[in-house]
Amino acid sequence: MENNNRKVILYIAASLDGYIAKPDDDLSFLSLVEQAGEDYGYNRFIETVDTLVLGRKTYDWVVKQAGQFPTHGKTVYVVTQTARPPLGNIQFYTGSPQTLIAALKSQPGQNIFIDGGAQLVNSLLQHRLIEEFIISVIPVLLGGGISLFTAGQPEQRLQLLACQQYNIGLVQLHYRLAGNN
Amino acid sequence: MENNNRKVILYIAASLDGYIAKPDDDLSFLSLVEQAGEDYGYNRFIETVDTLVLGRKTYDWVVKQAGQFPTHGKTVYVVTQTARPPLGNIQFYTGSPQTLIAALKSQPGQNIFIDGGAQLVNSLLQHRLIEEFIISVIPVLLGGGISLFTAGQPEQRLQLLACQQYNIGLVQLHYRLAGNN
Repeated sequence: MENNNRKVILYIAASLDGYIAKPDDDLSFLSLVEQAGEDYGYNRFIETVDTLVLGRKTYDWVVKQAGQFPTHGKTVYVVTQTARPPLGNIQFYTGSPQTLIAALKSQPGQNIFIDGGAQLVNSLLQHRLIEEFIISVIPVLLGGGISLFTAGQPEQRLQLLACQQYNIGLVQLHYRLAGNN
Repeated sequence: MENNNRKVILYIAASLDGYIAKPDDDLSFLSLVEQAGEDYGYNRFIETVDTLVLGRKTYDWVVKQAGQFPTHGKTVYVVTQTARPPLGNIQFYTGSPQTLIAALKSQPGQNIFIDGGAQLVNSLLQHRLIEEFIISVIPVLLGGGISLFTAGQPEQRLQLLACQQYNIGLVQLHYRLAGNN
């Protein structure tokens, strides 16, 4: 049983055709919406979470790009098949994503940020474990790459919580899993 | 050269995960947003077009469901590999979609409504022939079915023209192909 209401929230950007990266993990399309002083609610969102969960490939990619993973002072769980020693507040979790989520939700805390990638997202969707979706739709068709949603998940009804439009053409959709699933 | 500015517009509904139908052409998810007296701008849109273009599979599916294809008094082109005699103002076109669009755009007229399905849409995207996209995002993850966008298209930047949110949770995104493609 859950003893609190910390929520599991996916916060991610995708192209209109549903890709979170072009082939070879190319995220350059995100630069289409880069604007000085505009973070599309990211900092406001990050203040509502105390835990990040992400997949190993995404983690390695960020480390390769940025030199280290920006934890923002949060507890970070990297879901991986290969054990590694913890690195500060970054833990490498070799169990199943659903076991991790169940463990986190059994503890009190702030919300839980699902930071990608697609493999982790779809593993969680398989068990209807993503409770909110904040998706920033970038105004571009990429025509290929890594799809945010892959086939084979159960059907899940959503409730629209908000839809925010930005001048540059980004639309941020915010849904929660509907109660009738 | 185009001698007028009639536009090629895709108007379609899709789930958040990008499906326009569940497996076996199941469109029952559209009933999630059915509301008496609310057509999500369809009639206003249909008044701006004088021509519909759709694929043969979609045409046959509509005929099977509805008994006949509702032409709304428009000229209808069904793109098909197998010739059929015209049926009232419905013509069966055995050439390539891009040749059809070029021919239509060389003639004066109102806008051109691309009515699906995915095969036709992606064939047109291949040649950047869709000039506007009006996509009604239905608040559901279907988890499988027929994807609106398939991989292999050229990257295409878009400009957001409008984003309309409806109480029931439908978000209608309206883009045009950006000038810098």
